[in-house]
Amino acid sequence: MRQFLLVGHEAPTTAEFSLEDLPGAGRLDLLARSVTSAFLLSHAIRESVRCRLVLADEFTVRLEGAELRNLRPDERSTAALLRTALEARENAVGSIPAEPTPGVYLHRQGVEGALAAAADEGRLVQLHEDGKPASDVDPPADPVFVLSDHREFTGCEAEFLVQHDTERVRLGPEALHADQAITVAHNWLDTDGWTAV
Amino acid sequence: MRQFLLVGHEAPTTAEFSLEDLPGAGRLDLLARSVTSAFLLSHAIRESVRCRLVLADEFTVRLEGAELRNLRPDERSTAALLRTALEARENAVGSIPAEPTPGVYLHRQGVEGALAAAADEGRLVQLHEDGKPASDVDPPADPVFVLSDHREFTGCEAEFLVQHDTERVRLGPEALHADQAITVAHNWLDTDGWTAV
Repeated sequence: MRQFLLVGHEAPTTAEFSLEDLPGAGRLDLLARSVTSAFLLSHAIRESVRCRLVLADEFTVRLEGAELRNLRPDERSTAALLRTALEARENAVGSIPAEPTPGVYLHRQGVEGALAAAADEGRLVQLHEDGKPASDVDPPADPVFVLSDHREFTGCEAEFLVQHDTERVRLGPEALHADQAITVAHNWLDTDGWTAV
Repeated sequence: MRQFLLVGHEAPTTAEFSLEDLPGAGRLDLLARSVTSAFLLSHAIRESVRCRLVLADEFTVRLEGAELRNLRPDERSTAALLRTALEARENAVGSIPAEPTPGVYLHRQGVEGALAAAADEGRLVQLHEDGKPASDVDPPADPVFVLSDHREFTGCEAEFLVQHDTERVRLGPEALHADQAITVAHNWLDTDGWTAV
């Protein structure tokens, strides 16, 4: 399984935001694009993908490719899906997530909890300018790509990644947006060992 | 210079569309994402990029990376930029484009005219499932990636591409959305001959 974990440092934690200004809603535009990059192909969904969005260290939205329904490629409808998740925030109690729509789970969980859960499920991979070029690295079997939004990881987040022996990989010489990095990471895995017929 | 030419078969040709429903406006969400994928890096713009969007075989919006100002990563603001271009449609007369905002040119030009102009400026490259894997191909010096929106190229468009000796390349085993393909194509060119320091 491929996983992506995106830390949204300024993301909203309530449903009180406007779909008309997603950048102003803690860069929800970027989070929405990252979700669609993680799951959508041209006319299909990548079922064997899990994506976690950490919202301001308070909630984590977990999306499951095998269960998702009606995920559409535009930012606004994806942001509306995330807003529906936040409308169910009172149902996320303790370790029990809310399940507002198929394949979408809202956990009362911050960065550390989300990273710990992901680290239990696969190998953490950070896309980093000091990493080895992807072309020189064999992808791990169950990679969990850990990304940050428009801000850098905090000191605590970076420390956690070091403690969990996170692999550092570089996809290319240019610094990409999180959603672009997800698309390139998928292509890296798609083409690993691929021979066109 | 890197170029992208995206054919929007159902794209609007007037400014009479709502920013609240970009998918319903001839998949303007996809066109907007393709523009930002073509130009934007994490904290920079790719200046040596030209992008043409063909709008329903009637108009072509040409965007120039070296001149663009205020291109933001979200779909809505990019769609607003395209709407502003279409508001100037009466100023696009004959071969003279309108120039409504810096780096954005609106031409009264359909698919064939846009393809012919691009073919004069570089080597046409079609991302195609019958193409050679990108990893086995040396990228041409001035590639013009030709893409279609959610629809296939028409017979006439496909014929034009054959006549112009268009190179066929495959980026991977999965069929991607146009904006994702642009991101992966950039990475292909970025990493060609790249050695991380």
